[in-house]
Amino acid sequence: MEMALALWKNLLQTTKKRILQQRRLSLYNGAHGYEEELIKKKLQQFSGGSINLSKKDNGIGILTLNNPKLMNAFTGTMMVELQERVTELENWKDGKGLIIHGAENTFCSGSDLNAVKEISNSQDGMYMCMFMQNTLTRLMSLLCRLPLISVALVQGKAFGGGAELTTACDFRLMTPGSEIRFVHKHMGLVPGWGGGARLVRIVGSGAALQLLAGAARVDPERALSLGLSQETLPSSDGTTALGQARTWLAQYTEGPTTVIRAVKNVVTAGRELPLEAALRTEKDIFGTVWGGPANLQALVRRPKHK
Amino acid sequence: MEMALALWKNLLQTTKKRILQQRRLSLYNGAHGYEEELIKKKLQQFSGGSINLSKKDNGIGILTLNNPKLMNAFTGTMMVELQERVTELENWKDGKGLIIHGAENTFCSGSDLNAVKEISNSQDGMYMCMFMQNTLTRLMSLLCRLPLISVALVQGKAFGGGAELTTACDFRLMTPGSEIRFVHKHMGLVPGWGGGARLVRIVGSGAALQLLAGAARVDPERALSLGLSQETLPSSDGTTALGQARTWLAQYTEGPTTVIRAVKNVVTAGRELPLEAALRTEKDIFGTVWGGPANLQALVRRPKHK
Amino acid sequence: MEMALALWKNLLQTTKKRILQQRRLSLYNGAHGYEEELIKKKLQQFSGGSINLSKKDNGIGILTLNNPKLMNAFTGTMMVELQERVTELENWKDGKGLIIHGAENTFCSGSDLNAVKEISNSQDGMYMCMFMQNTLTRLMSLLCRLPLISVALVQGKAFGGGAELTTACDFRLMTPGSEIRFVHKHMGLVPGWGGGARLVRIVGSGAALQLLAGAARVDPERALSLGLSQETLPSSDGTTALGQARTWLAQYTEGPTTVIRAVKNVVTAGRELPLEAALRTEKDIFGTVWGGPANLQALVRRPKHK
Repeated sequence: MEMALALWKNLLQTTKKRILQQRRLSLYNGAHGYEEELIKKKLQQFSGGSINLSKKDNGIGILTLNNPKLMNAFTGTMMVELQERVTELENWKDGKGLIIHGAENTFCSGSDLNAVKEISNSQDGMYMCMFMQNTLTRLMSLLCRLPLISVALVQGKAFGGGAELTTACDFRLMTPGSEIRFVHKHMGLVPGWGGGARLVRIVGSGAALQLLAGAARVDPERALSLGLSQETLPSSDGTTALGQARTWLAQYTEGPTTVIRAVKNVVTAGRELPLEAALRTEKDIFGTVWGGPANLQALVRRPKHK
Repeated sequence: MEMALALWKNLLQTTKKRILQQRRLSLYNGAHGYEEELIKKKLQQFSGGSINLSKKDNGIGILTLNNPKLMNAFTGTMMVELQERVTELENWKDGKGLIIHGAENTFCSGSDLNAVKEISNSQDGMYMCMFMQNTLTRLMSLLCRLPLISVALVQGKAFGGGAELTTACDFRLMTPGSEIRFVHKHMGLVPGWGGGARLVRIVGSGAALQLLAGAARVDPERALSLGLSQETLPSSDGTTALGQARTWLAQYTEGPTTVIRAVKNVVTAGRELPLEAALRTEKDIFGTVWGGPANLQALVRRPKHK
Repeated sequence: MEMALALWKNLLQTTKKRILQQRRLSLYNGAHGYEEELIKKKLQQFSGGSINLSKKDNGIGILTLNNPKLMNAFTGTMMVELQERVTELENWKDGKGLIIHGAENTFCSGSDLNAVKEISNSQDGMYMCMFMQNTLTRLMSLLCRLPLISVALVQGKAFGGGAELTTACDFRLMTPGSEIRFVHKHMGLVPGWGGGARLVRIVGSGAALQLLAGAARVDPERALSLGLSQETLPSSDGTTALGQARTWLAQYTEGPTTVIRAVKNVVTAGRELPLEAALRTEKDIFGTVWGGPANLQALVRRPKHK
């Protein structure tokens, strides 16, 4: 009897550890019947465009969706490149913020339909979703490995998968004349990159149902009132708007890297965990900065109140 | 040892399967000490009024609360009939939308107090709540069996249980002069049909506490600003307002049935599940429409972007 | 085999019971490596100020943060006294509402930095957070033992831990010229008293990230539009404002004690539990008032509708 119990406890612990490790790696893995190498190989057959990353000295990364002749639609190779850029960001220890935008004054029109047509069987479609969900889940730092404060800068159009991509960021800034539109219904589809689940968290389930079931055009004004956008930038010119987005983001990323990343982690835990677990995590994150260099310096500077 | 473990795993799987099956049937069942036949028999002693369902060709159901001499208050037989109408809707494979409204220019004043007085012991009251929660949980498609986009058309008064009923719908439309009022406090009560839990999800916990603890009258303007109502219709005349509600709903139900139902399921999953589970469910729902007839037709029509 | 399974089931049940008991006592206890007596002893070395409680006949408690020479910053003994006052409130069976305010026209500037400096090692900092989280979790009645409708009356400044304290209340009322500010970033810190997790629930994760990462001053107008404050009171004078806050709160606490406390519990369950568990709890709470004295009286008075 003793042995059976010991064996069982051991089994349980090993399993738990394995699950935690897998969870840290990705939302989907072999345990979910997901074969990453298989779908990656298929995606790589549909090439075109690129995803470019520029890491600035002040800890701000600029990620550019670059396939302007198709309104920056995602080809298969762009999906693979996005995954690589996210890995690069995860390894960037000095990162504090991230701006995602599209080349040539528009955001992204979703998937390149040439690629889409070739993987139109249900199994491949699910694999493609799993691939993109894995990447976007890492991008939004659900697993706390990429605690950058992120902004989607929406110029021109963010359609379908492009609209879904914006929901993986903490903030959305729009330029005059731009629009976000979940056009999936008109393509006989629903979101599959996680945009539905994330949209509900941003605007509430009632507004999310209106946006998805109506496939309605959301202009900057409506996005503001829905809480889908934080601000409408004054300029719709690419370079100028990017500068304005960087200035806007700077007010939140100014400060020591450890502290900014800790703030992002506290908010992510607050959003994704039940209250008690969120409180415990907050306390643990607090422990990483309390008595740390930034805290001690501040105590010297302002010797009065917390 | 091997056998003990195998036995244990087997036990676990059987249990899990049983729980899932029960869950699919209802929120409460025998396992919760709930005796449906018993409360149904009691409810059927308090008769009056009716719940009528009309299923239109365009996939829109119209559910009418019909007991105008008591402001459409629920008698016992109306509670039983509501359950039957929900079963009928669950079996309607062509359904896309649902409008709930009351007869003769008012919504619903809650429970008929004659019925209420007779079942005023605590055990019967709990059974009555379990009966209504089971029905309303199925109505809001928590278990994904009734994926209709639903609207409560509030004319006149939605009081007590009537106010609770509106929260089981995706949307609420109000007519000029109408009001929603959680009057429970004045009856020495709190919501019991699930209206408290659902109200918190619609307006947030602060506003929900104000509405319940204040038993305040919510007019169309305040409902709009709280997000409790989506729109104030121009007409307060019964037939005209119903027509306006149908037009309003049509913008969200237009399109292939499979796609509209999939959209509703994505949003329900996004609201009720933790993020990771919601993402996995979204991917599964995506798999039901990807490469399906509506999707393939759209690809032919618009051969460019997702 | 039978015995192994029986043993295992027994182990599981005992554990579950123990967890539930501990949970009822506090968020953190010995099982979490938390040593309350140790941190209490340390906190008591840093004395000054007081936390005063006045329990009014109408069921409203007034809790005063009293350390005006440090803008009511929390000394160690004040943290210990807050815990004692919360215990006192939990034992006050006639309580319906609570107003928390600060002495001399300001709310609270967080922790007294003299105390903070002495406990600046990471372990003590975590213990201090656990101590305060335990108290504030009981204050917000997460475990349903203190079902008072609570208001933070913000005059002057609510900074750092003071801002966190306001998020443990159901409502926030601000006076003209007052401000709430999560200044933690400027101290090289993040919230640790649970203010981050609770803020996300009040204003959403996007706005919470802006407030924490920006350490921005929130004036009454912005607080209103964020839903962080329910109302701006007309007066900024201490006594007058307190009177206005009591009048404001009265509209929600008027009525039988059992009913008001039941309403608060329904809303807390609705906010903290998954929908199905919230529905079940609502039904249980309904059972405590259904057929009770307040309900029966109301049925006699108004013999028509629920």
